[in-house]
Amino acid sequence: MSALPPAVQAPPSALGTLDRCRALVRPALAEAVGRLHPWVAEMAAYSFGWCEVGGAPAAAPGGKGVRQALAVLGAEAAGADGRAGIPAAVAVELVHAFSLLHDDIMDGDATRRRRPAVWKAYGTGPAVLAGDALFALAVETLAAAPGGPGGVRLLSAALADLVRGQADDLLFAARPCAGPERVTPGEYRAMAEHKTGALLGCATALGAALGGAGEPAVTALDRAGRHLGVAFQLVDDVLGIWGDPEVTGKPVGGDLREGKKTFPVLFALGSPAARHLPALLGPAGRAEEAAALIEEAGGRAAALAEARAHTAVARELISGLPPAAGAAGELLGLLDHLEDRDL
Amino acid sequence: MSALPPAVQAPPSALGTLDRCRALVRPALAEAVGRLHPWVAEMAAYSFGWCEVGGAPAAAPGGKGVRQALAVLGAEAAGADGRAGIPAAVAVELVHAFSLLHDDIMDGDATRRRRPAVWKAYGTGPAVLAGDALFALAVETLAAAPGGPGGVRLLSAALADLVRGQADDLLFAARPCAGPERVTPGEYRAMAEHKTGALLGCATALGAALGGAGEPAVTALDRAGRHLGVAFQLVDDVLGIWGDPEVTGKPVGGDLREGKKTFPVLFALGSPAARHLPALLGPAGRAEEAAALIEEAGGRAAALAEARAHTAVARELISGLPPAAGAAGELLGLLDHLEDRDL
Repeated sequence: MSALPPAVQAPPSALGTLDRCRALVRPALAEAVGRLHPWVAEMAAYSFGWCEVGGAPAAAPGGKGVRQALAVLGAEAAGADGRAGIPAAVAVELVHAFSLLHDDIMDGDATRRRRPAVWKAYGTGPAVLAGDALFALAVETLAAAPGGPGGVRLLSAALADLVRGQADDLLFAARPCAGPERVTPGEYRAMAEHKTGALLGCATALGAALGGAGEPAVTALDRAGRHLGVAFQLVDDVLGIWGDPEVTGKPVGGDLREGKKTFPVLFALGSPAARHLPALLGPAGRAEEAAALIEEAGGRAAALAEARAHTAVARELISGLPPAAGAAGELLGLLDHLEDRDL
Repeated sequence: MSALPPAVQAPPSALGTLDRCRALVRPALAEAVGRLHPWVAEMAAYSFGWCEVGGAPAAAPGGKGVRQALAVLGAEAAGADGRAGIPAAVAVELVHAFSLLHDDIMDGDATRRRRPAVWKAYGTGPAVLAGDALFALAVETLAAAPGGPGGVRLLSAALADLVRGQADDLLFAARPCAGPERVTPGEYRAMAEHKTGALLGCATALGAALGGAGEPAVTALDRAGRHLGVAFQLVDDVLGIWGDPEVTGKPVGGDLREGKKTFPVLFALGSPAARHLPALLGPAGRAEEAAALIEEAGGRAAALAEARAHTAVARELISGLPPAAGAAGELLGLLDHLEDRDL
């Protein structure tokens, strides 16, 4: 029996897609990092899991590489070779690394991917500097790419949103749990779109733009990525409360003990059933009871329903594009994977 | 008697030039800052001296505004109206503000222009965020300007140099005062060109590029700004040791007590006359004796001679440009002012 014709071959698994795109982007990413000041390059390589403190080679877990994959698939969705999306992939991975370095300082998070965060390993000042260097390198990479000013405009808009989302996230921590000043689920959604969605949208849109896509496709992919980002954040919130610590790498109830105003918490705080919830949150609270109360008040179900709704919009936006070379199938596979991870 | 014809009118004073350019750029700079997240916009406005902590209006001393003036004069040197340089001026002032915010964190400097540094006034995390926002806003401003990708390329190259210079500056602190590992005056010069010169060069070159200058003029002005930056840093070093604290706002001998490896110190350390110098530096040293020994070893004279040499090269580069609308005269006036300030 002959092989199936390409048109009906099953799309590769999401993990296969992530691996393929990582392998495609890695040489260019390593080359870009290699252009940094050696000290800064070491901090960057450490943050990618490529080396230990001091520079000895390592194969520590890096990120999932979702952003670089979106950039490559964006280019492919435009009908181009995935390699056309590499400058976009490098730029968004550098921006992502920059934001993790600086966010860990701002949030006081001492651990990242089961290793000391860069500011813990190298000091706060050096980590600020390394983040700045990654940021500058991202802009430089994209400015040198054939995409031209349109690409830099997309990236700088995403950067502005990223910072805006981080500012809101930091300010949410100081807002009360009840009363008119409390954070609404709508405000939370906007924060998640800015903090997480903007860069996912930018990754896909930039890849498509470098692949020669027209304005409507670029805009549709940007919107799809933003919805995906909100869904991603909502799933993260659910995992932060009910996820398996073996898988998430985070302690059980950590988000509740830190009093994080995640979507399930905010949703529950709006329900009369959870009027005792504020007393159960925070370092002196009772995380297990809080989790049960949030679930009872519908916080878990609401977060997952919201996540599904945002993924559905993203799926519709992607399905509406002219089909090109199976990229839409891989994009959709990635979406499903991110929605379903470890739930 | 009739007024002198324009061609032989004396150029305005350097302070007049700085005031004129500041007035021209201020509305666009304020408009850009106003687009930031309100919390971040307040930190940015505080750093420019426009408000107090909490947002009450203030008229605290901002910077001299050298970078914005260079951008406006760069555009004028290209024969354009100075207003053509405004996006460049806004971008470089934002980058300068970003670098001061982050450098103060890295260097642990608690005071900036006689007020608490942003990280002291608002906290380290918020100051990191505000710096990131200013950086992103600078890129966004320039990406939206008519200059296109060439402008962003100039800016991102300067940003990369800026970070490289700051990395070297931080690492110099840990190097010994004697032996083969000591910092050489040549390494110091490269650091100063990266840390201070790159952005001054970029300011002038970007302004010229937006004013329609050709490649040779843009390159010449970039080089002129870089030499000016090295001269600027050398003069700063001299003022940091021998300057009037009433004028500099820095305590007498502060740089020596901090053990800063400035050019006069590095020069003196290379001379046998100053073999006792290392013992006089640092918090437990004797700053007054150190200053005398550095002067005796020729450190002060060498720094000023170097500064003059770099200013002379900058002057030659500017004088070699096709003359346009008196801008070269104002550029040269600014150079003289920066070389001679308070010496």
